[in-house]
Amino acid sequence: MTDPTVEDLLERVRDGDVRLHELDDHVDADAAATVRRRLVADESGADLDAVGEYAFDAADADPNIDNMIGGVQVPLGVAGPVAVDGGAFDGDRYLPMATTEGALVASVNRGCSAIDAAGGATARVTKSGMTRAPVFRVADVAEAEALVEWVRDNEPALREAAESTTSHGELLGVTPYVVGNNVYLRFRFDTKDAMGMNMVTIATGEACDVVEAATDAELVALSGNLCSDKKPAAVNAVEGRGRSVTADVEIPREVVEERLHTTPEAMAEINTRKNHVGSAKAGSLGFNAHVANAVAAMFLATGQDAAQVVEGSNAITTAEATAAGDLYVSVSIASLEVGTVGGGTKLPTQAAGLDVLGVRGGGDPAGSNADALAEAIAVGALAGELSLLAALGSRHLASAHADLGR
Amino acid sequence: MTDPTVEDLLERVRDGDVRLHELDDHVDADAAATVRRRLVADESGADLDAVGEYAFDAADADPNIDNMIGGVQVPLGVAGPVAVDGGAFDGDRYLPMATTEGALVASVNRGCSAIDAAGGATARVTKSGMTRAPVFRVADVAEAEALVEWVRDNEPALREAAESTTSHGELLGVTPYVVGNNVYLRFRFDTKDAMGMNMVTIATGEACDVVEAATDAELVALSGNLCSDKKPAAVNAVEGRGRSVTADVEIPREVVEERLHTTPEAMAEINTRKNHVGSAKAGSLGFNAHVANAVAAMFLATGQDAAQVVEGSNAITTAEATAAGDLYVSVSIASLEVGTVGGGTKLPTQAAGLDVLGVRGGGDPAGSNADALAEAIAVGALAGELSLLAALGSRHLASAHADLGR
Amino acid sequence: MTDPTVEDLLERVRDGDVRLHELDDHVDADAAATVRRRLVADESGADLDAVGEYAFDAADADPNIDNMIGGVQVPLGVAGPVAVDGGAFDGDRYLPMATTEGALVASVNRGCSAIDAAGGATARVTKSGMTRAPVFRVADVAEAEALVEWVRDNEPALREAAESTTSHGELLGVTPYVVGNNVYLRFRFDTKDAMGMNMVTIATGEACDVVEAATDAELVALSGNLCSDKKPAAVNAVEGRGRSVTADVEIPREVVEERLHTTPEAMAEINTRKNHVGSAKAGSLGFNAHVANAVAAMFLATGQDAAQVVEGSNAITTAEATAAGDLYVSVSIASLEVGTVGGGTKLPTQAAGLDVLGVRGGGDPAGSNADALAEAIAVGALAGELSLLAALGSRHLASAHADLGR
Amino acid sequence: MTDPTVEDLLERVRDGDVRLHELDDHVDADAAATVRRRLVADESGADLDAVGEYAFDAADADPNIDNMIGGVQVPLGVAGPVAVDGGAFDGDRYLPMATTEGALVASVNRGCSAIDAAGGATARVTKSGMTRAPVFRVADVAEAEALVEWVRDNEPALREAAESTTSHGELLGVTPYVVGNNVYLRFRFDTKDAMGMNMVTIATGEACDVVEAATDAELVALSGNLCSDKKPAAVNAVEGRGRSVTADVEIPREVVEERLHTTPEAMAEINTRKNHVGSAKAGSLGFNAHVANAVAAMFLATGQDAAQVVEGSNAITTAEATAAGDLYVSVSIASLEVGTVGGGTKLPTQAAGLDVLGVRGGGDPAGSNADALAEAIAVGALAGELSLLAALGSRHLASAHADLGR
Repeated sequence: MTDPTVEDLLERVRDGDVRLHELDDHVDADAAATVRRRLVADESGADLDAVGEYAFDAADADPNIDNMIGGVQVPLGVAGPVAVDGGAFDGDRYLPMATTEGALVASVNRGCSAIDAAGGATARVTKSGMTRAPVFRVADVAEAEALVEWVRDNEPALREAAESTTSHGELLGVTPYVVGNNVYLRFRFDTKDAMGMNMVTIATGEACDVVEAATDAELVALSGNLCSDKKPAAVNAVEGRGRSVTADVEIPREVVEERLHTTPEAMAEINTRKNHVGSAKAGSLGFNAHVANAVAAMFLATGQDAAQVVEGSNAITTAEATAAGDLYVSVSIASLEVGTVGGGTKLPTQAAGLDVLGVRGGGDPAGSNADALAEAIAVGALAGELSLLAALGSRHLASAHADLGR
Repeated sequence: MTDPTVEDLLERVRDGDVRLHELDDHVDADAAATVRRRLVADESGADLDAVGEYAFDAADADPNIDNMIGGVQVPLGVAGPVAVDGGAFDGDRYLPMATTEGALVASVNRGCSAIDAAGGATARVTKSGMTRAPVFRVADVAEAEALVEWVRDNEPALREAAESTTSHGELLGVTPYVVGNNVYLRFRFDTKDAMGMNMVTIATGEACDVVEAATDAELVALSGNLCSDKKPAAVNAVEGRGRSVTADVEIPREVVEERLHTTPEAMAEINTRKNHVGSAKAGSLGFNAHVANAVAAMFLATGQDAAQVVEGSNAITTAEATAAGDLYVSVSIASLEVGTVGGGTKLPTQAAGLDVLGVRGGGDPAGSNADALAEAIAVGALAGELSLLAALGSRHLASAHADLGR
Repeated sequence: MTDPTVEDLLERVRDGDVRLHELDDHVDADAAATVRRRLVADESGADLDAVGEYAFDAADADPNIDNMIGGVQVPLGVAGPVAVDGGAFDGDRYLPMATTEGALVASVNRGCSAIDAAGGATARVTKSGMTRAPVFRVADVAEAEALVEWVRDNEPALREAAESTTSHGELLGVTPYVVGNNVYLRFRFDTKDAMGMNMVTIATGEACDVVEAATDAELVALSGNLCSDKKPAAVNAVEGRGRSVTADVEIPREVVEERLHTTPEAMAEINTRKNHVGSAKAGSLGFNAHVANAVAAMFLATGQDAAQVVEGSNAITTAEATAAGDLYVSVSIASLEVGTVGGGTKLPTQAAGLDVLGVRGGGDPAGSNADALAEAIAVGALAGELSLLAALGSRHLASAHADLGR
Repeated sequence: MTDPTVEDLLERVRDGDVRLHELDDHVDADAAATVRRRLVADESGADLDAVGEYAFDAADADPNIDNMIGGVQVPLGVAGPVAVDGGAFDGDRYLPMATTEGALVASVNRGCSAIDAAGGATARVTKSGMTRAPVFRVADVAEAEALVEWVRDNEPALREAAESTTSHGELLGVTPYVVGNNVYLRFRFDTKDAMGMNMVTIATGEACDVVEAATDAELVALSGNLCSDKKPAAVNAVEGRGRSVTADVEIPREVVEERLHTTPEAMAEINTRKNHVGSAKAGSLGFNAHVANAVAAMFLATGQDAAQVVEGSNAITTAEATAAGDLYVSVSIASLEVGTVGGGTKLPTQAAGLDVLGVRGGGDPAGSNADALAEAIAVGALAGELSLLAALGSRHLASAHADLGR
């Protein structure tokens, strides 16, 4: 740490000659991170040695971070293996989960075990499409109506412009929404194995140029919040964003009783009173127990955008005792935004997480790896829901037994 | 990696003699992680070396992870320093942010720079309280009404029971909600510097025992989803959970024009059309541009629960041109669940993140460190909103200039 | 209709000497209505004779209407009688319903019949309070925090001011909400038998004067939309407004089978898939089949404010097969705003509607008549839910029988 | 009232020989109403004479009411005339409003006057379609995915079946939503001048038969609540139901100052703090001041379904000071369900209300009368918003003047 360059640059930053974000112009990425780390450590009094013990190449992280000072390390565990019959994700797989919440991986693991005993889960992506919704200002509603008609008549031109910016993305459609003198155009794209935010932002921008050139509408913002990115919004819960994915399982009564120590009826009742009626009374868009836990942990383990856990919590859990007396449970996540290329997926530990699932990089056919990742996360969420409902149900049963013993 | 114990245990796991989660009974935590990592690598074909290069002690991560196989590394950068006049957070501070989304830290950094040029941001926690809401089953609404009355009459007994389980937590109140034969009791606690989920779950459980002993109500689930944890729910957006925190700033017109290359009027207009009207049309609980980005990145950098980014996105951004022609911008996060003790805060890199902010461990007075962390995150979110709105506004201005130049 | 005064005034209005709303200064209310009706008929070409055949005294309708031209007549029917064990509403009662939707009264009637066969419904008001939430502008969040503290410390002064304006109303509490430089104070009042909007608006206005006199806060609007009146808002669905009321019933299996031609299990399943899961997916605040129908029809029949049907639709229906194999169904309306004095309750036909229920005028104790009206409407809504779910269930059963017959 | 038939039937009903709803089999509709009215009066002790003074023919009300006992009379007033430039509604028109809320008509009237002084309002229907969304049960998500694909491939067959039941309705599209083993199909129809609930229910039922015949899916309920009828649901606020309609106006500054006694800036600020930020904090789907008031009053005056006021409250109001210093205000109602044929539109007083607007019966082209009615209501709502915001703004101005006078 007595590297003369580092000491010299530290001095120059302190003197105001060089600014933090300009350090990369003077030294390599790791050295620049060292200078910043030293500076922040000195000014805050914090011991940042642990932060400096990162195991990736700072230059490789350049697309992911600015003003880098090091890395944060999050413990990684595995649940499973669990058998899945998916549209794209198949076989017996370990689910990688990075978290600091004790008992979470163990809980999902118990759920996986019950799923496995039942012969495995089914999973399917039932809708797909990444969205971007610019907002335009028009003179009044007469002009808004005209713009809506123009868009309906000119979708091919918008598609051509949008798709000229990308080799992979395909425009699936444009839906207009009018509020006073604002017109929102929700563009929806197939982004294949990429989560696709950047791709659709660029493509939509190009289409917006066409709109502005051909009409009197003026673009106010490339995102007008009807997309809706990283906000808890009904438009995503209803219409989906990224992948809409469901995992479900039918568990024989004896497995429920022996492994989960409860009954299908108890689990169905708890699911109704907690996940349905409780969430209804809470004014919620999330009718589940803790789907966000599995989403967050698997997002971190596979290099997804942690802020998009928000949309990943738009999930509905159902549970019922079947006519045959068995248990059916499902988890449907409306807006799971995932990718297996781009973003944080190239970082070494995150790439490893994707490899554990067998879904790293572009899929064959294109999009199938991201579909598979979505299905894997849905199965993890299903396992988590099963485990938590069972824990509540067994307490219930225990209490029922205690009642009988009185 | 030719440690005989590891090879031997690998064999025994493969033979089914030892299960993954039992490995800690046979070897130390790091060795157990090695065995699991080897096993998962072999079965999945993934190269997990990077995952094994973690820099914390596996035994120390025991409260945070199960079935550990290693660590995930997330790049860490800093924005700022930024001057803050907070209720608990004061001075010039760097904001640590762990993310894989390129340009995010740079964006927040630009916002910090504008805030600094304006003399700094103000921040306050305006409401505080961690909640847990068990659901009870009663016979009918007559019994529900009786339970509600009983709770109102017996809050001291509930408080005594709840507080008997914790040296720090204080019960602030219990709010009952009736839906048919379900009664939800929303317990709200002051959990000081802890995020407090575990604390309030245990304390609420004890209070539930009192309810069940004294009434005919039967506990169905310790969480009835009116809490509401890790779900996008109006109850949190309206009433708050964890900290309700606001950061705001008034930026002189010349700073807006020179640094942000736009005008107060343009930023206010964009905020209205995008964050207010767009979010309204989207059926959203989040009236902001990308608050979740700052929340997620600072949560990861400081050991918070990544799944609670969900509630952290319940935020409203306001922007207005003041009578004097300057710019006022605010961000109000309704339900930011943070702690500076417990959870992931003890892991080395996360503890360092807290140290950069000067908020690690218990505060003096108790709760002030968690308040300060909430205020720091709100300032980070404010900087991010400023930066994004300004980018949209300057594009706007550029386009206006281009118009004039025609 | 050749009354010289009428002809003369018609002329003067046409000449612009007298304006429509000034007619009451020249003739009595009925004659003024006649002049307006003639004028509107002439200008629009509409035949308004039917509109003129109203049977109330125009002068008596003065507190209810401006620019009156006559009356609209809505058919009135009755469902029931139905036996109710309520907190305030008791005995066997007919439910008056004014509607133009054919089959609605018949549907509620069938539900009443099933309820009666089960021994009657139970009903309770579980929470009560009419709200008004002014919005104040402050300088920044530091001042917002100070205002919140001031309010907490000065609730007695606010109560004194508020209650000085009313002989009946009592201030139950004030809840502050901060968003940037906006502070919303949600005042909640016990308004006894009045729906109470006017009462609480005046009382809150007086309290606002105290706030403005003692602090730097400036009142922006006496209603800041956190009340929330006549808008579909989660704050009402969660916290209630007016009366929160539940009606429920347990129906023996044989009654379900013989009268409703279905089974408890079928009804529970339909309720889950439609009212819970379907509403969840719709991003709804209404988890019911058609509660608004009963609310609207009974509102019209009893002189309530038709625009408040909006809040009356914030209702959750639950249905379950009990351990004994019977059917339990409940309807919980979160925010039912009703009164038995004031508003439209004095008009002759509306007063008659209240008399059919036995709840006209001030109750003894005060508030009990409005409680009883709320319970009556909840029972009507319960009957409507039962009937519709049963119709779906019997179709289901019919289809099941058809399957067996194949 | 000593009609022997009436007395005789009263006796027979009391004896249980004849049931209330069977009376129409024995006497004509008016006499049957008389018997019921007598009976209800006797049993409740209510004086129902006023209820009996209805001015329509009971037989004509047969499609609208069951168990009729008479009529409810609601005072009717007019606002306007107001000039409108609509897509279907044009010219200077009076707006008929039936209400019991004093000052409402006067308030809308003031707004109309300001609109007129500004040269009139613009109005447009920007989206149209009545929906019905049955829910089907399938075995699991694999079957759900298959059903979604089947629907996409067989929309022509569904259209043929649906349209075979109606001479007017056209199927615009079917959107599938999957939640576990539930599949919701949202059918959307052009119902021309009819509100269309009955039409689309019958047509959708026919299409469901096709689905059930061709797949393993089983229909659970013809309405699965994703329609969503008479519930406050985001799906309607986002995607629309019935008509999505906007009215707007640009008012010169001098008109704002002289007639409304406030400024464009004050009105824009109030709209932001109350209708946008306040509603955001309330978790609302209604970002307006009191749109439901105009909707309810004009619904009652024109024979619409009062329970659908619920969806009519899904409205956003915007207000801004233009670059030229004038005021732009708009109201956008997302889901206004109206018809000018069927339902209550044939009753004499309601038909007169439609005639005042010039929109009774089928339009030319088909659908244009219902469009015009939607536009008329939007203008009424706009006038109401203007008036209320101005009242708040002038208080504001008054208070500002008072400040200057100190």
